[in-house]
Order: sequence, then structure tokens, then C-alpha cells
Amino acid sequence: MTRQMKLGAFLWATGHHIAAWRHPKAHVTAGIDVDHYIRLARTAEAAKFDMVFCEDAAGLREANVGIASQTSRSIGFEPISLLSALAVQTSRIGLVSTASTSYNEPYGLARIFLSLDRLSGGRAGWNLVTSASPIEAANFGATGLKPHADRYERAREFAEVVRGLWQGGSFPGHDGQSFSVRDPLDLPRSPQGAPVMVQAGASDVGRDLAARTADVVFTAAQTLEEAKAFYDDLKGRMAAYGREPDDIKIMPGVSPVVAKTEAEAREKQEELQALIPDDVGVALLSSYLSISDLHRHPIDGPMPELPETEGMKSRQALVVEQSRRDGLSIRQLARHFAGARGHWRIVGTPAQIADELQARFEGGGADGFNVMPSYFPGELDAFCDLVVPELQRRGLFRREYEGSTLREHLGLKRPA
Amino acid sequence: MTRQMKLGAFLWATGHHIAAWRHPKAHVTAGIDVDHYIRLARTAEAAKFDMVFCEDAAGLREANVGIASQTSRSIGFEPISLLSALAVQTSRIGLVSTASTSYNEPYGLARIFLSLDRLSGGRAGWNLVTSASPIEAANFGATGLKPHADRYERAREFAEVVRGLWQGGSFPGHDGQSFSVRDPLDLPRSPQGAPVMVQAGASDVGRDLAARTADVVFTAAQTLEEAKAFYDDLKGRMAAYGREPDDIKIMPGVSPVVAKTEAEAREKQEELQALIPDDVGVALLSSYLSISDLHRHPIDGPMPELPETEGMKSRQALVVEQSRRDGLSIRQLARHFAGARGHWRIVGTPAQIADELQARFEGGGADGFNVMPSYFPGELDAFCDLVVPELQRRGLFRREYEGSTLREHLGLKRPA
Repeated sequence: MTRQMKLGAFLWATGHHIAAWRHPKAHVTAGIDVDHYIRLARTAEAAKFDMVFCEDAAGLREANVGIASQTSRSIGFEPISLLSALAVQTSRIGLVSTASTSYNEPYGLARIFLSLDRLSGGRAGWNLVTSASPIEAANFGATGLKPHADRYERAREFAEVVRGLWQGGSFPGHDGQSFSVRDPLDLPRSPQGAPVMVQAGASDVGRDLAARTADVVFTAAQTLEEAKAFYDDLKGRMAAYGREPDDIKIMPGVSPVVAKTEAEAREKQEELQALIPDDVGVALLSSYLSISDLHRHPIDGPMPELPETEGMKSRQALVVEQSRRDGLSIRQLARHFAGARGHWRIVGTPAQIADELQARFEGGGADGFNVMPSYFPGELDAFCDLVVPELQRRGLFRREYEGSTLREHLGLKRPA
Repeated sequence: MTRQMKLGAFLWATGHHIAAWRHPKAHVTAGIDVDHYIRLARTAEAAKFDMVFCEDAAGLREANVGIASQTSRSIGFEPISLLSALAVQTSRIGLVSTASTSYNEPYGLARIFLSLDRLSGGRAGWNLVTSASPIEAANFGATGLKPHADRYERAREFAEVVRGLWQGGSFPGHDGQSFSVRDPLDLPRSPQGAPVMVQAGASDVGRDLAARTADVVFTAAQTLEEAKAFYDDLKGRMAAYGREPDDIKIMPGVSPVVAKTEAEAREKQEELQALIPDDVGVALLSSYLSISDLHRHPIDGPMPELPETEGMKSRQALVVEQSRRDGLSIRQLARHFAGARGHWRIVGTPAQIADELQARFEGGGADGFNVMPSYFPGELDAFCDLVVPELQRRGLFRREYEGSTLREHLGLKRPA
């Protein structure tokens, strides 16, 4: 059989476009409407997606509460509870939630994810993040954001403990630098061997951690060259940990805007772009880059040089490179960026979208894609109705689920 | 209208009787069968119970893994994920989960409970525990079990932060001894004002914390006198915190064994008692009392004097008092205790059970009861089919839900 791509549906309240909440068809309180999420998950499952995915942050998303309330995801469910509800409203699709290694303990986290896994019959995944936001840090003690290297060292040990606990009754206990855990979990081993482990850190230390422990890696890449460079680098690091390249599925984010004609697709895209307020775009870009004074620079001037950060190093490099390459002003970069939050955006007909995805997939830049619809449910529906059948016709995507667990969908080995 | 009692259904894998897993009709893997829990929750909802309740401990339930695997709750879902699944499989019944103030952070805990509350349309409750088990402590660092007073001081501050966060956007931040939290939650306020706060600590400091912060208090009482003494003491402490007695609903645990005839009920009870292995009974009693050497004492001799403990002080007093009062040997106490885990057990016809509950309720010992069926689903079904209609005939329990939130079911004020 031809190699087929993996697809995730990245759920995000009203939609991934920053102005989704201003869209005429927007469901403004989507973030706290469980029926909305049930509908999205069932749509993705009917289209045979591998998984739905939820990001997370334990805090407001923007430092400026006024700005936060103007974005598309200012309120929303905590994702593990949400996915537990979706577990009993779906039957096949994988359920992946983000959770932080900085503000949890490995015993509690391993336990709740294994519980979600058991509730869903082996469909859970954990997206490991180290939490780069100082907003979150301020809700968990006065110590502030820890240095990048320290967060990753804690994350490495955290992941090791979680993997051990997921191995079941044979867990030998752990006594390490940050954690000491004595007993196994009070749950039998996962139907899929262990929940799927997802990561998205793209810095050097983040890539090493992924090469060592991840089953799936989400990433952001604007061009095929960027995507290939990341893909080759990450897969190249795996041998050092005794792993084969196919043991990780690399899934870049993609924000497709699709319609039956190209003109119609462009019109849909322009409609959303025109709804982005400049202050929101700049605030979002600032927050994403972990810098606080971007609004003090002339909005029609170039991006300033950025100071060293303890936030997400890899994000900064990506965004700054893009602004230099395309000669974008702060306003232009903010608006461009705000639409897809730094992810790849493609606008066109079903055939054009499928062409682009196929080129990345077959060109060595991806094992699949994490689909980020600009607004819900409209753009997820459009992707499922128009693009998925085109991918299926080309033999690039499944017509039926082959197995019942997330690990089976993804074609991952069952852990020993 | 006559004052009516409140009813909780305490869910617990195969059942509350220690030998439930050995019952001929036992569902041995009930603890990880979500359909089992959905059936139980719907049964309790059809009978108009106020809530289902889940206990919790982040670790194995018994230090001796061999014994643990022989008890009725050696494996099971993490309860917040379980109740999130039940939230979308029920529509009216309250959903109360236990969670620890020792192994969580207030921001994360307040957030996931408010998320469960939103998922369920205002039906969530949090049962605050400080976690007295050294087994749990060993899974969360090498520091061991903290002293009783320290755990309660942390719990008091923890509850204060959680209540503040549940107040929504007006949360002013908190900078205290154990916790520092800056921002409000990323969820709008609960449909019921705030999730219901439940407690069960019965020590002096535990009662003070309950009088200050709890909406519901679970307790264990063998006799009406014990129940009244606790009831009067707790309600008497509330004025000091500016609260009225009716602001807390006191709900003792009760393990009813009911059948159409008394002989049949006694036969059901004897069938279960005969299934208790002595080593399991003694191990459970030891664990419950936080003492390790009970098995070294002659099993047919009296209970030894107990050393000072940092575990649950109030439990020890209760159990030792009972053994002295009834002249029970270790074997007899263990067997008696193992059946209902220190809770009140009543065996009889529907009218006899209703008489007993009515006497406690009208005699000033309870505002309602947390029902602990000896095995599931059989004894929950029997209670709902036989006892609930009898209570309804007597005007002691609702025939229909009056409201839609847990706080409305319980007749509690909406927090300001």
C-alpha cells in the first residue's frame, strides 16, 4: 500500500484565525460549548482523522486582559476534562491534549492520561510542553519563569517517569533530580501499550527531547525547505537513542482555506484578514515572541532586533527570518502572523490544497499534518467535505480506520 | 413543604463491601469500565439522587500490593476524567470528585473543576482532602507525609484561593504562605455561582475548615448519638464564620442492604460477610488506621492501644471506641469494619431502612445520606427500586428535580 498521511484536527474554540470570533458565522462562546466540540470531533471522526488535538495553558492567553477578551480563545474548557467527555461521544478518533511538565507532577499526569486512555479504549495522547509563558508562571508561585534549559531538564526527567509509569506493574520506582515516585499507577496498562507521546519543541534541546521520547511531533514550517530541514534534522537525531526514523510521525501545522473555486477561497481568506484589529495582531505577535515592547516600535517599520529570551527560542528565529525574507513591516507581519499563528496557510481549491499537501508529504517534509481550520465549524467542514475525498482519491489518506487505537491509526509500534 | 433529605450515590468500582469483588454477581473489572459507571450514574439520576460521588487517592490503596489486588478497588479511573465523561451521559445529577490539596496546585485544580462544572451545566462539586496516606506521599517526592496541622493549614489557604478563583474576573490575586496566584481563570463563572465544596475531615481542625468553607460534609457515624454530636458540633462552629447552619448539608455515609423481606436482606448480607478473607480484613483495618503492625497482635484478642498518628486522627478514635463498646476482637472488628469501611450499615426491608434513615434525619443527625451500596449494580438498583419510592411516599425525598444545578438540588445559596 502507498504510504498515507496522518491527519490531526487542532480544535480551538471559535477557530485558529485571530479574528475568527468576529466572523459573521462565528460561535462566540464556542470555547465553553461542549456540544460544539462534540460536533467537531464527530466531523473529524467521520472523515477518518487520526486525532483531535487540544493545546493548553493554565492562565489567560494574553497579558493584557482587554486584548485577551478580543481573541478567539480567551475562554475555554480545560482540555483533559473536555477530551474525557469526547471519549464517550466518539468511538475511533484519537484524543490528544497538551499538559505542562512545569506545573504538574508526573504521577498525577501519567494517571489522568492513562485514565483518559482507558475511558476511550486506547485513544489518548499527551502533548508535552514545558510552558514558556510568564503568565502561567505567575499563577504557580512567585518563582517566575524558569530558564529554558532547566525547564527542559525537568521535562526530560518528567517524561522518563511518565513512560515508566505507563509500563504498568513493572515500574521499578524513580528517584531523581526533580521527582521521586515509588509505586506503579492504580490502572492496568493501556490498550495501546502506552498513550501516544506528542511534542512540539523545536529548539535544539527540544528536538533532542523529541528524538528521545516523542511518537508524534507537531511543528510550524512556512516553506518546504524549512519543513525538510526540520524533518531531516529530527529524524537524524533518533539513531542516537536507538530509534528508527518511522518511530516518529512529524506533522506540521497547516491552516487551509478551501472552496470550490480559487476566487471563492481567496474571498473567504480576505474576509477574515480584514477583521484583524492592528492592536490585537501586534499584541498576539508580542506574546508569541515573549517580548513586551513591540507596540513601542513604529507599526509600519521593520521588526526590531530581539533580545535573548527564556521563552520559545525556536519561534523567535522562525518569525524574524520570515519578516526579513519577505520585507514585512510590524503591521504586515502581525496581520500575516495573526491569521495562522505562525503556521503554514494555503488558500485554494480542493485540488490545489491536495497538491500542496502532497508535495510536502512526498517531498520529505511531513508524515502528515495538524489541520488548523481558520474558523469552526465552517472550515473544518469544508476541509472534510472537499479536501479529504480528494486525498482519498489520490490514495494519500485512509477511507476507513484500520485499527481501534490511536497508536494503530498512526502506525506506531506498541511499546515493549 | 416538608424538609427533604439529600442523597448521594458513592460510586466505588465493584462495591463498598470489601469482598464485593468475590460476589457471584461481581463485575471484577468494573473500576475501568466506563459503561458500568454510566449505568450507575443514570440509575441514580432516574431515582433523583442529588449527586454521584467519587473518592480518590493518587496511589495504590494498600501498601501491600498483594492485598491491594484482592480488594474491590485496586484499579480504577482517575475520577475527574471519569466524571467529565459522565457529564455528557447524564443531564441533571451532581458530579462530585475528591481531589487533594497536598498534591495539586490551586490554579490547576480550580480550573479543572470549573471546566467539569461548565461541561455539566453547573453540576460539579469538589471534595477537598488533605491526603493522609503515606502511600500517596511516596509518589510525590521524598519529603514524606506532612504533619496533620501543616496539611490543614495548606488546605485552608488552598480552599481560599480556589474560592477566589471561582468568583471569576473579580479575583484580586493571592500572595500567601504556600501559594501565589496572579490572574483569574480562563473560564467564565459557574452556572451555579461556584462548584459545590465538599469536605469529610472530622478532626477538630478538619471541622473548623468545614465550618468555614464547606457546602456539604460527608461523615461516618455508627449511632444516632454519634451522628447528633457531630452534627451539632459542626453546625455550632459555623456562626464564628458568619454562616447559617443550613449553609452546610451534613450527609453521613450509609451502607444499606435491602430486600423485600428481612430474612432475604440478612441472607444477602451474610453471603458477603462470609467472603471476607481475614488477612484482607486486618490489612484494610491497619491501612485505614495508618498503623502497620496490627497483624502481629493475636487476631482473636482485643484491639491494642494505638500510637499517635499523623494520619486521620478522627478515624482512629471512632474505630477504637467501637471495638471497646462492642467487645470485638481484631478479627471481629476487621470483618465488621471491612464490610462497610467504618460506615453505618443497615440491613432490612424497604420500610425498615426508611425508618432508620428517617430517624437519623428527623432526629437531628443528618441532612441526608451518602449511600454506599455493598456491591454494584445490584445494591444500588435495590435501593433505588425499593427504598427511594418508600422515602418518596413518606414525603422525605423528591419525586422530580426542582432545579438544574447541584447547588439547586442541595438547596444551597448561590455564592455572592
